[in-house]
Amino acid sequence: MTTPALEPPTLDDIRAAHARIGREVVRTPLVRLGADGPAEIYLKLENLQPIGSFKLRGAANAMAQASDAELAQGVFTASAGNMAQGVAWCARARGVPCGVVVPDTAPEAKLSAIARLGAEIHKVPFSDWWNVLVTRQHPRFAGRLFIHPVSDRAVMAGNGTIGVEIAEALPAPDAVIIPYGGGGLTTGIASALRALSPATRIYTAEPETGAPMAASWAAGEPREAAYAPSFVDGCGSRSLLAEIWPIVRRLVDGAFAVPLADIAGAIRILVERNRVVAEGAGAVSVAAALAGRAGAGRIVCVVSGGNLDSAKLARILHGELP
Amino acid sequence: MTTPALEPPTLDDIRAAHARIGREVVRTPLVRLGADGPAEIYLKLENLQPIGSFKLRGAANAMAQASDAELAQGVFTASAGNMAQGVAWCARARGVPCGVVVPDTAPEAKLSAIARLGAEIHKVPFSDWWNVLVTRQHPRFAGRLFIHPVSDRAVMAGNGTIGVEIAEALPAPDAVIIPYGGGGLTTGIASALRALSPATRIYTAEPETGAPMAASWAAGEPREAAYAPSFVDGCGSRSLLAEIWPIVRRLVDGAFAVPLADIAGAIRILVERNRVVAEGAGAVSVAAALAGRAGAGRIVCVVSGGNLDSAKLARILHGELP
Repeated sequence: MTTPALEPPTLDDIRAAHARIGREVVRTPLVRLGADGPAEIYLKLENLQPIGSFKLRGAANAMAQASDAELAQGVFTASAGNMAQGVAWCARARGVPCGVVVPDTAPEAKLSAIARLGAEIHKVPFSDWWNVLVTRQHPRFAGRLFIHPVSDRAVMAGNGTIGVEIAEALPAPDAVIIPYGGGGLTTGIASALRALSPATRIYTAEPETGAPMAASWAAGEPREAAYAPSFVDGCGSRSLLAEIWPIVRRLVDGAFAVPLADIAGAIRILVERNRVVAEGAGAVSVAAALAGRAGAGRIVCVVSGGNLDSAKLARILHGELP
Repeated sequence: MTTPALEPPTLDDIRAAHARIGREVVRTPLVRLGADGPAEIYLKLENLQPIGSFKLRGAANAMAQASDAELAQGVFTASAGNMAQGVAWCARARGVPCGVVVPDTAPEAKLSAIARLGAEIHKVPFSDWWNVLVTRQHPRFAGRLFIHPVSDRAVMAGNGTIGVEIAEALPAPDAVIIPYGGGGLTTGIASALRALSPATRIYTAEPETGAPMAASWAAGEPREAAYAPSFVDGCGSRSLLAEIWPIVRRLVDGAFAVPLADIAGAIRILVERNRVVAEGAGAVSVAAALAGRAGAGRIVCVVSGGNLDSAKLARILHGELP
């Protein structure tokens, strides 16, 4: 099966998404980090969305554009947790069934949250799960509309609404750091900011334990990366989605790989100084900024989500993780 | 020394405060609680203010109205932590020295935060500290402008801006539950809501371990309460400030005393379902709503602050506190 070349959303797509999803999605605050650092660091708190991550934006925009006929059999997605919650949330609101294919490595806290939203969970080995992202099909959910967690223009336009809100709250920041998972968040936000604030430098951040974007950026072409599981379960992987690399390489100015200890440190600082819980994927941007990776000036860190198991949070606060 | 009778702020006072403090203070989001309960529960997240509590609003409004001449010698306040941070933050912004009289029971995390803001901390026995609230004087800080943490009309007007924001975000909620410490937060918010949304029921919430407002409400006149220290250090006390009772009794519809275990449970739910850290005083309103104390319908809980020591938070997440 071949996928048509993916185009990033235009600013018009993103503005239309913003108008479309305004009732379901929280306009999250942009606040100053409450700790001194090498830069004036701001936090875009997507962990305050109802499902605890930015994924609601893309899911809501994609679902809003589907007709009742397209949704007649229900929807499904492939996700390790956060996108599944986004699609399940929107399916519940629309009154249609939702299926979720998850890798058998998905964390329990995220599975519980998906189940609470009423979705049907189907666990498969990691390679089968990755295959759903590539083929957009799974026999268990045949006939249902597939919402891709990353490589879907409507999903990326929904993610891009974060860029619009950043530019409105803090015009022309010097840099924005975006957690890099599949690339849909980066593509959405960067597409908005390239139009609204062309001089802003845009960086991606991944955990050192799974940083294919940083490896590919350094090599100038797609590269695989070593991967080790950790408390950072919302981003970090072995490989890039093939269709995303040519888009992302045009949009960003650099890619950071961040040590786990720095990510845990950023989670502690966010709790103690800003009273918010970030998951590892959400804190990786803050860790990069605190380490000075994006230089000085006004730097916006996207805190992409906060779905961290509270037992793990307690261990991080005690200094027992990583 | 006699204090003139205290008048609550008018809606005009509160609107003027809102215009005055808009640049320093975060317009905090009003979000749905991410857990099922007996009501449709909303959270006004004042723990997202830069100093981690609502106290910035009152401090900013009082300081903004002081002339350079009044501030020439600096300012001081009497606080167990949160108001001290509010006044210290504003004093630093204004470039004037700040003194803080604290009771020797004040928690270490709050003292560190005050020190980081550059204020001079003066520790005294609890009774001496209470005496500063009554006399508005302390020899260590003679000649400085005193900012009362509660019984000051400008401070209450600043607090009242929360009520304006609630009414704008969610017109005519069925009830609002407000953590009760000294009564300044209740007076400010209730003064706004009585004008903007007269049918909304207004309740106070205190920890069972120090609930003079609940005792006084039940008796119809000021009463002392038994007091025991706990992880709830931002509200709960032995007695009411005399000048506040006649104001508060006119403004509220009931007063709840909440068990510590319920408060700890609410802190856990706020972390797990909404990704925010509340201190005990901030979660007491949520605990009351979850227990059904304010009935059904749309209920706004003011999450007044989030300055909870992270070691204590870890113990609460582990179920080791209270």
